[in-house]
Amino acid sequence: MPRSTHRATSAPLPTYSKLASYLGSLLLGSALCASAYAKQPTQAAKRTMGELLKASATTDWRMPDADNTLYMELEKGRVVIEMSPFFAPAHVANVKALIRENYFDGLSINRSQDNYVVQWSDASEQRPITKGKKTLQEEFSVRYDARMAFTRLADHDGFAAQVGHANGFPAARDPKTGRAWLAHCYGMVGAGRDNASDSGGGAELYAVIGHAPRHLDRNVTLFGRVIHGMELLSSLPRGTAPMGFYDKPEQTITIKSIRIAQDLPQEQRSKLEILRTDTPLFKAITQAQRNRSGEWYKTPANYIDLCNVPVPVRIRGE
Amino acid sequence: MPRSTHRATSAPLPTYSKLASYLGSLLLGSALCASAYAKQPTQAAKRTMGELLKASATTDWRMPDADNTLYMELEKGRVVIEMSPFFAPAHVANVKALIRENYFDGLSINRSQDNYVVQWSDASEQRPITKGKKTLQEEFSVRYDARMAFTRLADHDGFAAQVGHANGFPAARDPKTGRAWLAHCYGMVGAGRDNASDSGGGAELYAVIGHAPRHLDRNVTLFGRVIHGMELLSSLPRGTAPMGFYDKPEQTITIKSIRIAQDLPQEQRSKLEILRTDTPLFKAITQAQRNRSGEWYKTPANYIDLCNVPVPVRIRGE
Repeated sequence: MPRSTHRATSAPLPTYSKLASYLGSLLLGSALCASAYAKQPTQAAKRTMGELLKASATTDWRMPDADNTLYMELEKGRVVIEMSPFFAPAHVANVKALIRENYFDGLSINRSQDNYVVQWSDASEQRPITKGKKTLQEEFSVRYDARMAFTRLADHDGFAAQVGHANGFPAARDPKTGRAWLAHCYGMVGAGRDNASDSGGGAELYAVIGHAPRHLDRNVTLFGRVIHGMELLSSLPRGTAPMGFYDKPEQTITIKSIRIAQDLPQEQRSKLEILRTDTPLFKAITQAQRNRSGEWYKTPANYIDLCNVPVPVRIRGE
Repeated sequence: MPRSTHRATSAPLPTYSKLASYLGSLLLGSALCASAYAKQPTQAAKRTMGELLKASATTDWRMPDADNTLYMELEKGRVVIEMSPFFAPAHVANVKALIRENYFDGLSINRSQDNYVVQWSDASEQRPITKGKKTLQEEFSVRYDARMAFTRLADHDGFAAQVGHANGFPAARDPKTGRAWLAHCYGMVGAGRDNASDSGGGAELYAVIGHAPRHLDRNVTLFGRVIHGMELLSSLPRGTAPMGFYDKPEQTITIKSIRIAQDLPQEQRSKLEILRTDTPLFKAITQAQRNRSGEWYKTPANYIDLCNVPVPVRIRGE
């Protein structure tokens, strides 16, 4: 069974004893060759996400671009972050430059604030930066055109004129201004800054571990999304100093290293696949989640929030 | 400084070195006697939540009703849950009956699913229930009338016709049906069930630890909200079995006991106060969070999501 992150938003609340039988309906089994759902559009509307994924085709999935995928190695395992050079080209380039000078190795996660973010940086501010830059012009939004693949969500969003997914990332756009930006959903990764818009740059990073703080959208540069190992960040003990900073240096979580997947030999890379978000299957899954079928659900939501739309990730070959 | 849960949604992302100066503006100091904000309505709109709370009056706060407040004692500390007899009278009564027969003592948290819920129950299903009931008729929604204090949020909500706060709880209502219900925001507590609507009852409980799964609204009975100690639940290691269940019994988290505050002597009770949600101050705070002031914010959100509206909790006398 693929270890898909989609389970995170899909499973209702069966009592313990019914778990086994319930799981039977979710098990994805081995991958099928044909995308059966496409041949049965009428039936598709009633299928669960699990059933739709089970019927997915190989072409419904993509591998993350190794040159824009990060591995943050912690004591307990690897956090995999996919970056978006489309939305934040300068920040992505700078984070990569910092990584290639081993800037993050041995630094620590020094903030874990409940229902908000974890954050990591050089708390001592002693570490020199040689190849990368300490600060950058902000990339809060980008100009978009038809080349931005955007699967627009039909549902109303309070924070933006239009929301949807661009290459797997939750995003928003405003046709009036022609600008698009990434959205602060669970698992999104950005570059912390001080009061000045251009005071960030990628030397201090954060990941969202709570209910989407969408008020941060267009206020701070997002550039990536955790696609695997999210629980290694979200289950960290919360810091007890104000804003979730750890009180004492010994409470911080050491970052063994951050690497770019491309820089590692193939056998050391995580074998992940992400569901494409520019496909009929993705739209069908979104619809399945908007009004969930199955015996458990009694009241249809008839709505889905951008940050509840699953972008499933699976381990290749499982 | 009050250890207020409002910080969880209020703090932006300053770099580490600027933390000290930034915090200066958030420090609440000792409580003032007069509610200064009410006298300066023009200025109030520009104040931060921290400033508004600093100027709060004693009467802006309430103590949770001891007879409807639960203490879940874990190895690492106490989780405090306020219950709502208005929204789920039978479930609240039954949970109290179960507590008073020590039903939960020694049971364990056996599920922790990332970005979703933690759940606790008698996994063995061997424990007898004598005073309480194993299952109940569902309480997915209630009929409301003018007696339900409801501070309606002006902002559009995708899941419900109207949303807001009722006695501190995030809630929704539909004037067409005359029904109201609690909303699945972060920290909300409910009674798990199987496929049948009336298969829950309170012997198996869950708390939301991720982005609000609002699609569960009106599908499962909510009856409470964690008002303190949330991090003890949200930072638990995630279970690695499907749906976040712990693989092995030794991974589960033992519940030492669950008690009703009323049943403990005064000196053993948590001294918490909750900001009233039926006051001008609460509306002013909501407005302050809708468009946050201060130098850090560059792009106003002009919107707030129900589940991002803070309901501050503080320790009495701090």
